[in-house]
Parts: sequence; C-alpha cells; structure tokens
Amino acid sequence: MADGDTRHTLKVEARGLPEPLRAALAERFGERFSTARAVREHHGRDESPFPVTPPEAVVFAESNEDVADVVRLCRRHRVPLIPFGAGSSVEGQLLAVRGGISLDLSRMNRVLDVRPEDMTATVQAGVTRKQLNEALKDTGLFFPIDPGADASLGGMCATRASGTNAVRYGTMREVVLGLAVVDSDGDLVRPFNRAKKSAAGYDLARLMIGSEGTLGVITEVTVKLFPVPEAMSAAVVCFETLKDAIDTVIEAIQCGVPLARCEYVCPASIRTLNAYSKLSLREAHSLFFEFHGTAAGVQEQAATVEEIATAHRGQGFEWATRPEDRTRLWTARHNALFALLASRPGGKAIVTDTCVPISRLADSIVGARALLDRAPFPTVIAGHVGDGNFHCGLLIDPNDPSEIALAETLNDEIVRLALSMDGTCTGEHGIGLHKVGYLRQEAGDKGVELMRRVKQALDPDGIFNPGKMF
Amino acid sequence: MADGDTRHTLKVEARGLPEPLRAALAERFGERFSTARAVREHHGRDESPFPVTPPEAVVFAESNEDVADVVRLCRRHRVPLIPFGAGSSVEGQLLAVRGGISLDLSRMNRVLDVRPEDMTATVQAGVTRKQLNEALKDTGLFFPIDPGADASLGGMCATRASGTNAVRYGTMREVVLGLAVVDSDGDLVRPFNRAKKSAAGYDLARLMIGSEGTLGVITEVTVKLFPVPEAMSAAVVCFETLKDAIDTVIEAIQCGVPLARCEYVCPASIRTLNAYSKLSLREAHSLFFEFHGTAAGVQEQAATVEEIATAHRGQGFEWATRPEDRTRLWTARHNALFALLASRPGGKAIVTDTCVPISRLADSIVGARALLDRAPFPTVIAGHVGDGNFHCGLLIDPNDPSEIALAETLNDEIVRLALSMDGTCTGEHGIGLHKVGYLRQEAGDKGVELMRRVKQALDPDGIFNPGKMF
Repeated sequence: MADGDTRHTLKVEARGLPEPLRAALAERFGERFSTARAVREHHGRDESPFPVTPPEAVVFAESNEDVADVVRLCRRHRVPLIPFGAGSSVEGQLLAVRGGISLDLSRMNRVLDVRPEDMTATVQAGVTRKQLNEALKDTGLFFPIDPGADASLGGMCATRASGTNAVRYGTMREVVLGLAVVDSDGDLVRPFNRAKKSAAGYDLARLMIGSEGTLGVITEVTVKLFPVPEAMSAAVVCFETLKDAIDTVIEAIQCGVPLARCEYVCPASIRTLNAYSKLSLREAHSLFFEFHGTAAGVQEQAATVEEIATAHRGQGFEWATRPEDRTRLWTARHNALFALLASRPGGKAIVTDTCVPISRLADSIVGARALLDRAPFPTVIAGHVGDGNFHCGLLIDPNDPSEIALAETLNDEIVRLALSMDGTCTGEHGIGLHKVGYLRQEAGDKGVELMRRVKQALDPDGIFNPGKMF
Repeated sequence: MADGDTRHTLKVEARGLPEPLRAALAERFGERFSTARAVREHHGRDESPFPVTPPEAVVFAESNEDVADVVRLCRRHRVPLIPFGAGSSVEGQLLAVRGGISLDLSRMNRVLDVRPEDMTATVQAGVTRKQLNEALKDTGLFFPIDPGADASLGGMCATRASGTNAVRYGTMREVVLGLAVVDSDGDLVRPFNRAKKSAAGYDLARLMIGSEGTLGVITEVTVKLFPVPEAMSAAVVCFETLKDAIDTVIEAIQCGVPLARCEYVCPASIRTLNAYSKLSLREAHSLFFEFHGTAAGVQEQAATVEEIATAHRGQGFEWATRPEDRTRLWTARHNALFALLASRPGGKAIVTDTCVPISRLADSIVGARALLDRAPFPTVIAGHVGDGNFHCGLLIDPNDPSEIALAETLNDEIVRLALSMDGTCTGEHGIGLHKVGYLRQEAGDKGVELMRRVKQALDPDGIFNPGKMF
C-alpha cells in the first residue's frame, strides 16, 4: 500500500493552475479545455475504490500536435499532466493527487492503418480493443488482448495489460511492435517500427509499456494481429478440489497444449455468475478453457485436456462449440466482477492481482482462500491460471471502516504470500497509487532507485503523472 | 556505418591502465587477471570483420561478487569495462576501442536452477545455449533461441538475439523472464522474477536486453522453456522465383500455420551448402520448414504448407521426418556462413541483418539481390523469412580495399532500402560499432537522445562498453 495512502483517504497536494497556463490552454483548445466540475470529476476516478480526486482541468486532445502543445505548456509551468484513456485502470493511476491537467485521449480514436499482409494495425491511443476488433472484422484477423474492460490501447500499453488470452497470445509487452510517444520536451518519438523484431538500440517501446503515464504520453500504438482461428471451442470442467483443477492446468501446459484461454473460477464466483448471468453451472472449482486451431487440432487439444482433467477427477466436461454458447460462457466469465457487485448492492470491490510461478499457483490460491475465509464479507477468486495470475474479489461495504481495514490487511497478506513464492504484486493492473510500497518490496530499493533515475532522465521536471509508481 | 569507422580501420583511444587499478585487480584476482598478449587479443575480436582491438587486461569472473568488484574498481578509476561471453557477436561489440578491461564471464557457466513444473531455467550468464539444452535433456523441455553460434545466454540477452526458431518461440525479448545485473555502482539488481508476467514498474529487464553491455553486466538469466514437441518434421521446397517463395511464407503465416522454423536460402547459397555439407539439394530459391506439434498436427501443418507452396509453383517438396535427416538439413542451414567462407579461401564475410514488415520482404530481397549482382565477389542471401529478417553474405578479399569499399556501399544501400520500407537496420545482430549511424537514421535524433539520457542515468561515468551504440 502506498506509504500513508489507504483506499479511503488520499493525501492530495494541488497547487492550483497558474493563470497564464489556464489562459494559454483556453486559447489553444477552446471548448476542448474544461474546468467544469462534472468533467473534472469524471477524470478524477478510475475503477479503483479510491475516492474521486479530480484534476484542475481537462484537455481533450485530437492529434499528436495537441498532445505536444499540452505537454510543452505543462512543462513550462511545471504542472502535472495525467494521460487519460478509457478510465478503466484499477489502481488509482488516473487520480490527480498532485492536481494538474488530465489529458483525455479518447477522441484520438482513429484506426490509422491496418495491414492484413503484415498482420499489423496502427491506431491512435484512444482506440479501444473492441473498436479495433470491430475494424478488423472483414480481415480474418483479430487483436487478442482483452482486459475485462473495453480499455484504450494507449492505456493498455501504459499498464502492461493482458487478460484471458495472454496464455496463448502474450501481453501488451509481447504484442506491441512500435509506439509514438510525446516526451517531456513535447517531441514526438517513435521507438521501433513495424518490423517484427529489431536489435536496434535500447527498447524504448518496452520501457514505455508499463510506465503508467509517468514517462511520456503514448499517442499511437502498432500491434501484431493474429489470424482468426479456423476453429474454436470452449469447455467447462468441474473439480472437487482446487488442487486438482490447478494440476490439470499445469499438466496441460507441460504437454504443450496451446491453450488459448484457461481460467479458474471458484465455487463462490460460480454462484454469483449463475445468479447474474442466468446460468446453471455447477458450484464447484471450475476451469473454463478455449481452444483455437484447425478443426482437427481443436478436437485433439480438447481431447487431451479432457483426458488430463479426468485423470485429476474432473467432472461434467461441458462443451460449447457453437459461437453463441462460447460467447455466453465467456461473457459470463468477463462479468465476474459485475456479478460479484450485484450480489451486494452498495458494495465496492477490492481486487487483488498477484501472479506466481505456476508450480506455486495451487499453494498461492489455497493460501489466499484460507486468508479470505476470515472475512465476514463475500469473497471470490478467479484468474488467468495458465499464466499463474489470479484475482481475489473482496466485496466490502465502503461505509464500514472495519471492512475496509480488513480488506486492506487481507490484500497485503495475499501480496506477501505471492512475493514469498517468487511472484509479483501485480500481474496486469500495475502499481498506481496503491502498490508503491509493494513495488519496493518486489524490485528492492536499488531496483526502484534505477527506475527513479530513468524517470528523472526522461521527465526531469516530473510533470508526467506524479505521485504514481514511486 | 559508425561515423569515421570503417571495417578495416578503427579509431582506438586507450589511455592505458592506471597502475593502482592494475595492482588492485592483480591482488584481487591473481591468475584470473591477465595482461598476456594472447589473452588480450582473444578478447579483442568477435565474429565481425573489424581488426583485432585488444583490451588492456582481461579478468575472468566466477561469481556475482567478482563482477561487482571489477565494476567498482573500474568505476573508481574511470576505466572502460566490456562484458565478454562467448565472443560470437558480429558487429564489433567486444572490441576495446577505448581500451580498458574485458570482463570474461565464460567461467560463470553453472545452470543454477531448472524448474520443469514452471518450465523455467535460471543460468549464469556464461552458460551457452547448447549447454543449457544439454542440461535439459531429461526434462522433456528445451530452450529454443538459436543464433547460429553457440552463444552465451548473457551475450544473447545483450544483443537481443533470435535465430531460426524465433518465428514460433520469439526472441530473447520474449523468452527472458528475469535477470540479475550488476549496475554501475557495483550493486546486484534483479529486475523481475520468475512470474510469467508482471505489471510492476518499469521493464528494466527489457531495457537491459539489447543494451549490448552499455548499461550494466548481466550475470544471471531466467528464461522460459518449452515442451519438446511430440512430433517434428522438416521439409525443403524449391521455387523458380524468389517472389513465389516469399508469397508462400506470407500465406502460410496468414493461415495461422504455427511454423516452428521457416528459412529462405538463395540458389547461390544452396550451391555452397551442397559443396560444403555434401548434399545434393536443387540449386533454386528454397524454403526450409520445420513443424512442431502433435503427430496429427504436424502432418496437418505440413499438408497445408505443401498445398500453399504448390499453389505458388513450389516443386520437389522433400520430407525429413527422421531425426538424423532433420539434423543434417538444419546443420547445413546453420553452416551457411562457413560454407560461404569455404568457397573462397582467405575470404572474409560481411553479413547484413535487415528486417522488414513481411509484406515488403519480397521487394526487399529482390532489391538486395539486384544490388548484390553488381559485386564481383560471391554473395548469398539466407534468412529467417517468417520474421521478415534476412542476411546477405558478401565474401570479400580482406586485402582488397576496393572490395571492402564496395561491400560497405552495398551494405549501406541494403540498410537504406530496409529503412525506406519501415524496417530495421538490425533484426538480431545489434548496433555495436558498425551501425551507430544507422541507429540514428532509424530511431531519429530524438530517439537516440532519449537512449543517451537513459545511458547517462544508469552509467553516469560511461564505464560500460564505451564507443558502442552511440
């Protein structure tokens, strides 16, 4: 947890916008510059349970030049600048804890270039993953990275996002080829190009990916695309014990089955999903699989996994080969958080995000479950188990300080457990405000010092998203 | 080409080792500190055609503590330090153009930890790829990255290496999970851990990968391993035209065939391979494929590719399903450079390394071939065409200045052609001494300035491999 910050109180230090900056932004951007309270409040929140912390103004950028001008003005006046995409980050990344400008990139939403032959697309940073896939509909290609929310690609780069398909297709770290970034001087830099690989110089693109808006503003993203598989099928299988479920995953991966998706859902989460999505899944430790490949390949993968699952006492292997059944299954999985929230009106969810080497996954989830069993509020576990990444959802009453405190304690213990297993405090959500202390535990004082030196080198006046990550 | 440097002359600026440093290293390392001429000369060369440029001394490290002590001593005396692995880099990365110490890591060759359940291995930086695969023999797992040489894993990180398997398994950028690095303060830092993914802070591991020894000394590497496929098969197919060959590759990739290897070899290179490896392959534009998967999956992949190749007038599809036939085929491919060298005794090879988006690959190779046809010396083309990466081998007489000059001109034009096609000057060999100017063309002045700022932040006294990359 960030030193001194908890999820219900935040230390905010805003100096107010210098009048010359306000005047310059108003003149340059007209109606696209706003200090309206509703606009600011919308930009002072994300999907985290932190209180709304609005910026002092919002600028809606429509071009690289807009971004460059805002950066130059903020730099000149030493005023914080927070890039804003779809507002779906979950660790407080967007909150204006030092005041300043929120730079909304959602209008930079043009798909600039789709090259089916190269299997690449270049988009403006505000394009969302669903929008990109819509634009790809007739190409036979798709973009696989799917965090739960319909996040923007710029934001997904910034938090090094992944999701259910990462076990097969990788995370943003792997699928991004190139970026356009406006740096702290207001210059547009294009680290890397469209070649599938390159050994030319420092990997500035990978440095920006996961930097959470603290090193520059990502304005364009070039990503790899993948062929829509000839065949897909999905399946659900139930287990009496968590360990049997996880052992099935480990064995399937070790056998080289190219799982496209492999999600664990706990019995309590299945119960909320059934209620929310009108399903009748058995309330057991469940694995949701998806297989991509040729028709014969998909059948073979599924048969192998069924055999492995059966050897681990898996039951009730259920198939969904029709697109509508597959969609229903995965929509239900993606709605896990909403299903949880619906189970306690007025509740707020605290979501953990640990990731461990897969051999420690069963211990890690069993340990987390034992901790969660102490809670008087509803808790569920679901996750991208093929990657060793899982989330615990803790559904608290935001008006009950004792529940908040207990949730933070449990989250803390779950993170410590992951770190003790050579894991990470965040598989895909990032550091933001909430995990500053854990980053230090994980990377060590010296690791954080090197990151700070890089930050100082690329953002010497500290204008980009101050108060986050460090 | 580096400003002012050509492949036959190098500007060397060495100040001589300060006596207190020499004394301290001699005392600390005893016989593992050497100023013997033969030892220095061995460490002043790599696989590049640059003249031998020896360091002033060599230290053989055996532990992280050894490395830390050498770094601290070099830092104190402001003396350059060049990490040395297997000596197989190809762009002059190891040459001591500013004098100083070569830090030989080849004795740090212990496989520290193999975890079959997690499919990870942690090795000291001096472990070579073949040594690692030997250690994995009984695990059912393998490490796929295979640059031609039996390079060290530390060196492969440093140059962001890849090779023939990258089309399926990725490059060092994708397969490295974590590193141990000794930084310019002599501190050991461990960016990232063994979790398969992480969103915790800046990606220091990816920053080190490809930094060519200019940011720190990589001492340990944790990599992903992959299951040895249940079945493998290899095939060769010939084409009348280069374009037909490349179109076959593009279509196979677009169909989602998970090619494990996909190499183009030009007719002239086939001729040298036949002579060198006692083969009787047809002297035509040839594709070498390898398929990995289940028995049925491999058959299906191969059938799909054969069908696509036939549609593009491919002929003489030849199979190699027996391990010894596969090995002979791929050994021949890996020996392409030696086969070329054997065809002109006393010759030296200049090897290009461009990589372009795959839609431009045919144009790029056809363009390179047209340029090469101007040369009076033997030239061949071969490459990792599934990634858009190919190498031209120019076999020159190193004593003929006109051949050297023409080779440099041709290399220059081939790089310009790649850059004009949104490609890179180096797919897998790195910048070293030779491509400093191209890095600037590719990344832009501002891109290089940002890299320099990162360098300054992490190596403020510039002790790590000075004169390279910038």
